[in-house]
Amino acid sequence: MASFSYLTFLTDYGLEDGFVAACHGVSARIAPGVRIIDITHLVPMADVRRGAAVLAQTVPYLPPAVHVAVVDPGVGTERRGIAVAAGDSVFVGPDNGLLTWAITSAGGATRAFSLTNRRLWLDRVTATFHGRDIFIPAAAHLASGVPLEAAGDEIDVASLVTPPALASRTGNGEAEGEVITADRFGNVQLSLTKEDGEAAGLVSGVSVVVRWGRQRLTLPFGAMFGAVPPGDLVVYADGSGMVSLAVNGGSAAERLGMEAGTRVTLTVVAG
Amino acid sequence: MASFSYLTFLTDYGLEDGFVAACHGVSARIAPGVRIIDITHLVPMADVRRGAAVLAQTVPYLPPAVHVAVVDPGVGTERRGIAVAAGDSVFVGPDNGLLTWAITSAGGATRAFSLTNRRLWLDRVTATFHGRDIFIPAAAHLASGVPLEAAGDEIDVASLVTPPALASRTGNGEAEGEVITADRFGNVQLSLTKEDGEAAGLVSGVSVVVRWGRQRLTLPFGAMFGAVPPGDLVVYADGSGMVSLAVNGGSAAERLGMEAGTRVTLTVVAG
Amino acid sequence: MASFSYLTFLTDYGLEDGFVAACHGVSARIAPGVRIIDITHLVPMADVRRGAAVLAQTVPYLPPAVHVAVVDPGVGTERRGIAVAAGDSVFVGPDNGLLTWAITSAGGATRAFSLTNRRLWLDRVTATFHGRDIFIPAAAHLASGVPLEAAGDEIDVASLVTPPALASRTGNGEAEGEVITADRFGNVQLSLTKEDGEAAGLVSGVSVVVRWGRQRLTLPFGAMFGAVPPGDLVVYADGSGMVSLAVNGGSAAERLGMEAGTRVTLTVVAG
Repeated sequence: MASFSYLTFLTDYGLEDGFVAACHGVSARIAPGVRIIDITHLVPMADVRRGAAVLAQTVPYLPPAVHVAVVDPGVGTERRGIAVAAGDSVFVGPDNGLLTWAITSAGGATRAFSLTNRRLWLDRVTATFHGRDIFIPAAAHLASGVPLEAAGDEIDVASLVTPPALASRTGNGEAEGEVITADRFGNVQLSLTKEDGEAAGLVSGVSVVVRWGRQRLTLPFGAMFGAVPPGDLVVYADGSGMVSLAVNGGSAAERLGMEAGTRVTLTVVAG
Repeated sequence: MASFSYLTFLTDYGLEDGFVAACHGVSARIAPGVRIIDITHLVPMADVRRGAAVLAQTVPYLPPAVHVAVVDPGVGTERRGIAVAAGDSVFVGPDNGLLTWAITSAGGATRAFSLTNRRLWLDRVTATFHGRDIFIPAAAHLASGVPLEAAGDEIDVASLVTPPALASRTGNGEAEGEVITADRFGNVQLSLTKEDGEAAGLVSGVSVVVRWGRQRLTLPFGAMFGAVPPGDLVVYADGSGMVSLAVNGGSAAERLGMEAGTRVTLTVVAG
Repeated sequence: MASFSYLTFLTDYGLEDGFVAACHGVSARIAPGVRIIDITHLVPMADVRRGAAVLAQTVPYLPPAVHVAVVDPGVGTERRGIAVAAGDSVFVGPDNGLLTWAITSAGGATRAFSLTNRRLWLDRVTATFHGRDIFIPAAAHLASGVPLEAAGDEIDVASLVTPPALASRTGNGEAEGEVITADRFGNVQLSLTKEDGEAAGLVSGVSVVVRWGRQRLTLPFGAMFGAVPPGDLVVYADGSGMVSLAVNGGSAAERLGMEAGTRVTLTVVAG
C-alpha cells in the first residue's frame, strides 16, 4: 500500500479540552510528514448518525487520505475498531456505522481489517480514549506506509455494521424522505438526492406541498434560498446535492420543528 | 505573479459542519504545497461588517498570502466574485464590502478581477456553496502560480463595493466614533484610532466623559484594562490600536449595552 | 539549543476573533518551517487553573516543541514572561502558574529565563496582547534556532510562580482529592491518580462511597463509563490516568453539582 500525505479527523471530542490536540500530537510523533485536515470535532456527543452524514458529505472534496472518525458511545465494549479500504482512501474508526455512508460515497469497501495489531497502538491503552490510543496511532502508521494488512485480522466487508437505511422513495409524482441533519444555518437536509427530486418533478419554479407529522405547507422550489424574499421558506438542492428546506436568512430547522429522522413527503402542485 | 506559500480563510461557516474542511480539501487537491491559516469561521451568519473588521485587523500580522473571505448573504445572486491585488497579497471573496477594510490596511487595491474564468472553479458549481466551488479553488490556483490576470475579466478598482464609511470625527477636545465590534472578552472597539484619541487629548491618566444614546459615564483612560480594579470600566487603546472600552475581568459590551453601529462621543475632562 | 519542528499553542482567546490567527501569522513570518499544533483556545477566560490542567494532560502526547500558553489575567502588570526548559521541550508564557503542572509532567524545569530581550518581540508591543506581541514571536525565534539563553535574563527556577498544591491524600482505606476540572462530556476529574486510587483499594468491581459537601453516594468503580447502564454514575480512571466520575451518556458535573476545587472523599465499601 502506498503511503498517504493526509490524515483527516472527525470526532465528537469538542474543542475546549486537549483531546484533539493529543491525537494530533500522537500522529505527529508517528508520522511527522503527514498533514491533518480536521473535518469537525463538534459532532453532538455520541450522535453517530450526524457524524456519518457530515463525513460522507465532506469526503468527496478531500484528497486521498486515511480518514479517521471517532463518535464512539460504545468505547471499551466489544465493538470492533476497523480499517477499511475504499476508493483511494482508508477509513479508520469504530465499527458502529459511523463510516458506512462515507465508504459508500468513496466507492464501497474493498477490504476490511479489525484493528487487532497492538503494535500499531500506543503502549498504554486507556479504556475510554481509543481515538488517541488506538485509532490515531494505527491511522498514522498506515498513512506513513505500514501496509493495511498489518492493521490486524482481515474481516468480511459484509460483516461491517451498517446504520438503518434512510427512507427514500419516489413515485406517483411525490418524493418521500427523512431528515438527515440540519446544518449551522438551520438548513434541513432530506434523504433525497437532487435526482430523486427531479424524478418527482421538483424543478426550479414549481410549487411543492411539504407534509410531515400533521403539518403541511406549500412552498416554492428554487435554485437556492436567495431565490425567495428574506424570511421566506424554500425547497432547493443544497451544496451536497440533497433536497433541503431553508429560510432565506433564517433557520428552517427552528421554523419547521423538524429533526433528524422526521419523515417528509414532497408533492409537486400542478402548475 | 509569484506564487504564495499561504492561503488564509475567514467565513461564517461555523465549525460544526464539514464546510470548512471541504474547502481545505479542495485547496489541498489543487495546491498541496500551500498552507492554510484559518482566521475564524465564527463570524455571525451574514454579518459582513463583523467579518470585514476581523479580517482587516488580522491581515497586518499575516504573511503574504491569498486571503479568502466568505461572508456572503448574496450567494447565488448577481454580486460578483472578485480577486484583488493589494500590497503583497491577493484578496478573494464576494464583492460586498467584506474585503474593503483589509484591502485598505494592505495598502489599497492595485488591480481587481471578476472571477469569471470557470477553468479555475470546480467542475460542478452549486448555487449555495461558492466558497468551496469558486472562491477556494480560484484562490488555490492563484496561490500555486496561476497569474492573477487569469482569474477573469479585469474590473475597475473604483467599481468595487465599499461599506458605508465609519463615523470618525475629532476636534474641539472631543472624539466621536461608532462601535465597530465587540470581541470575545466583551471589549468594545470604536472607530477611532489611538492617534484620533490623542488628538482629542485621550492619554493615560485623564478622565473621559463617554456619551451614547441618552447615557453618559465618566471613565479613566488607561494604558490597558489591568490599569483599573477588577470590575471597573476603562477606556484604552486595544491590541489593534483602536480606542476601546473594557471592564477589567468582565464584559463592557454587556455592561454598557453597546452594539455595532452605536455612536459614542468621548470628551476629556479637564484635569 | 537545537531548533524545534513544532510550536504548540493554548489560550483563552476564543475562536470568534482573529486573535489566534494573528499569532499564527506572526509565527509564520518568523519561523515559516515550524508547524503549530493548537491545543485549545477555549479555556474559560482568565481560568489559569483550567488552562494549566489541560496543558499538563496534553503535553505528554505532543512531540518535542516550544509550548506556548497564554491565559493571562495579569497582562500588562508586573508579572514576568518566561521561557522554561523542561524535558525535551521549552515552555513559554506568563509566570502565573499556568505552565507549572506541564513543566512538572515534562520532567521539571532545568533552566528558566525572563523574556526581557526585546529583539525577540514584535517592534510594536501593545499593552493587552502579549501573546501576539511577545510570547509567540519569542517562541517562534526559539523554535527556529535562537538559543534559549537569548530569551532574556536567566532566573532561578525556584522563583517561578506555582499554583496552590492540589489536595491529594490517601490512607486508612480512603482517598481524598479535589475536582481539577470537568471535560466536554461532563466527566469530573479528581486530583487523584489511578495509583492513588489503587492504594485506597479502588479497583474494578468494588463499591465506593463518594462524599462531598453534605452529600454522599455509593457508586461502582468500573474500568470505564460503559461499564454501567446508560444514565448511571460510575467512578473510573480516565484517559489521563486520573480518578474521575462519569455518567454513561450524560454529565456527571451537572448531575453532582461539582466544580473545580470541590473536595471529594472516596471510601471503598467492604465487599
